[in-house]
Amino acid sequence: MKMEQFNQRRKVLNQLMSENDNFFETFGDLDDSVYSEGAIPKKYKELSGLSISILTRCEECIIYHIQGCIAEKATRQEIIEAIKIGVIGGGSITYPSARFAFDAMKELKIIE
Amino acid sequence: MKMEQFNQRRKVLNQLMSENDNFFETFGDLDDSVYSEGAIPKKYKELSGLSISILTRCEECIIYHIQGCIAEKATRQEIIEAIKIGVIGGGSITYPSARFAFDAMKELKIIE
Amino acid sequence: MKMEQFNQRRKVLNQLMSENDNFFETFGDLDDSVYSEGAIPKKYKELSGLSISILTRCEECIIYHIQGCIAEKATRQEIIEAIKIGVIGGGSITYPSARFAFDAMKELKIIE
Amino acid sequence: MKMEQFNQRRKVLNQLMSENDNFFETFGDLDDSVYSEGAIPKKYKELSGLSISILTRCEECIIYHIQGCIAEKATRQEIIEAIKIGVIGGGSITYPSARFAFDAMKELKIIE
Amino acid sequence: MKMEQFNQRRKVLNQLMSENDNFFETFGDLDDSVYSEGAIPKKYKELSGLSISILTRCEECIIYHIQGCIAEKATRQEIIEAIKIGVIGGGSITYPSARFAFDAMKELKIIE
Amino acid sequence: MKMEQFNQRRKVLNQLMSENDNFFETFGDLDDSVYSEGAIPKKYKELSGLSISILTRCEECIIYHIQGCIAEKATRQEIIEAIKIGVIGGGSITYPSARFAFDAMKELKIIE
Repeated sequence: MKMEQFNQRRKVLNQLMSENDNFFETFGDLDDSVYSEGAIPKKYKELSGLSISILTRCEECIIYHIQGCIAEKATRQEIIEAIKIGVIGGGSITYPSARFAFDAMKELKIIE
Repeated sequence: MKMEQFNQRRKVLNQLMSENDNFFETFGDLDDSVYSEGAIPKKYKELSGLSISILTRCEECIIYHIQGCIAEKATRQEIIEAIKIGVIGGGSITYPSARFAFDAMKELKIIE
Repeated sequence: MKMEQFNQRRKVLNQLMSENDNFFETFGDLDDSVYSEGAIPKKYKELSGLSISILTRCEECIIYHIQGCIAEKATRQEIIEAIKIGVIGGGSITYPSARFAFDAMKELKIIE
Repeated sequence: MKMEQFNQRRKVLNQLMSENDNFFETFGDLDDSVYSEGAIPKKYKELSGLSISILTRCEECIIYHIQGCIAEKATRQEIIEAIKIGVIGGGSITYPSARFAFDAMKELKIIE
Repeated sequence: MKMEQFNQRRKVLNQLMSENDNFFETFGDLDDSVYSEGAIPKKYKELSGLSISILTRCEECIIYHIQGCIAEKATRQEIIEAIKIGVIGGGSITYPSARFAFDAMKELKIIE
Repeated sequence: MKMEQFNQRRKVLNQLMSENDNFFETFGDLDDSVYSEGAIPKKYKELSGLSISILTRCEECIIYHIQGCIAEKATRQEIIEAIKIGVIGGGSITYPSARFAFDAMKELKIIE
């Protein structure tokens, strides 16, 4: 997976998109504002984002939100519960994404 | 929408399913356990469930989780933030579901 | 639900589509040929179609394939197993569709 | 279907959403700007929106974009071609949505 | 693709998940039970699982169920018919998955 | 990504599919006919196909339709507008696909 490589590629391409059309900056800002601290604490929003990433089977989204969860000091158990919410909602077709998330947790040394 | 009618129909048909095959009881119990109080408080799980319901455009799920949010004393603002997480994640094709959720909030007298 | 009313509306609108553009006739014929008796018996194809209808949460597809299952003399238990394949694959967001299918089974007097 | 009733409900609920959180106004404006006249003429964007509505099986989106197509003077044949793009992309699970679109065309007197 | 490598990775990560939370063992067992011999023979369930894997465009699921089909002695023609059920249901966006499945069949020496 | 490699693999596997079952040739021809010059010019159909590819998060479809757009002499700005239609419709879970499309544009030297 190589988290750093993903983060770098994501940054470069997001910038390329924003340079070519400011729609992408506006949309990105709107997304950031939805996930910012609010009535729902940012930690729980990131966990929600992780559940959604599992359910929609979006690997890049998993990498993004799992790092967001950790930045908000979500615990290993909270992250696992968020994954379970995605799996029970989306069924066994989400298993590859759950495996991917556990692999990411291993790379991030949240689990052994 | 008629919340009560939905709740009644949901109960009757879930029971019919469980009577015909205990798979449905097992699956239902598993779903309940995932959404139960845990490292993530039940309130935030219900809000997450609402975000997922918006994103997957599942009206019955919206009715179910919006009632779950209220049972856990989620505020109007928290519920709206959960809806926004679903909309930003799933885009404008989720708007009909967001409208449906606001209509449900009106019926439940969370908003005027 | 009213099975007869659905069947009638489906027939009228399919014909309207075919009259307006023969693409719809070609596509419909292709769909019919895929679901016809083959190396896989038609009954198992209809059961597969029902699993897919549950998983994709398509109510009209459920009505269509559940009637197809019955026409091929699928038993109550086979139909329920097909529904379970859809639910385990697609998760709890398919529950409203599973309920819908059981309601259809009741209307078709496959279950009481 | 009753187009007018849908339009009215859509307007009332969109306003309710914007009043409760300006996110919805921002998102709605962003959506409008994407669909506005640009390098791609608005007519072809509306036809694209209709293809997407068929493929994502979103009935309210179909009603919305089919009216947008007509407002941009798209012809009957162009509308049918847009529906076909949705159907070939999304397969037979989009047939109920294609039927819905043809029914809407009939109500709007685009076809007899 | 390298089937063996996938099987190994799948096994290791599934075990990691089960070790961290027994939800994953329960869910996995439930999935196994749904796909076990029943009123519908296991072979037809695996073929159904393959159709679903094509339609939901899940490559790991394709690898998993195509091996399941072969274990149940499904023929080349039955496997191809299952792929076709997925493609006609899910449309041309499933073509990359159909190609993936044929590539897997080649690796498994079911086709030349 | 390596466009040429993808094109080659796509061609080989499509041929393998058609050789094994003429369904795939029929379906492929039907897809081609839907995307051919018609009441809607082919260029706008290819742009529509690109929007759909973003929204459905299908990377192979993105590569295919972006090349189709260029073959029809769509401009950089038109291609970007088509990507935006996909993103606003499908939300932030389509961002990885939008990034993928911009990366493809760079490889095709449409943007720097």
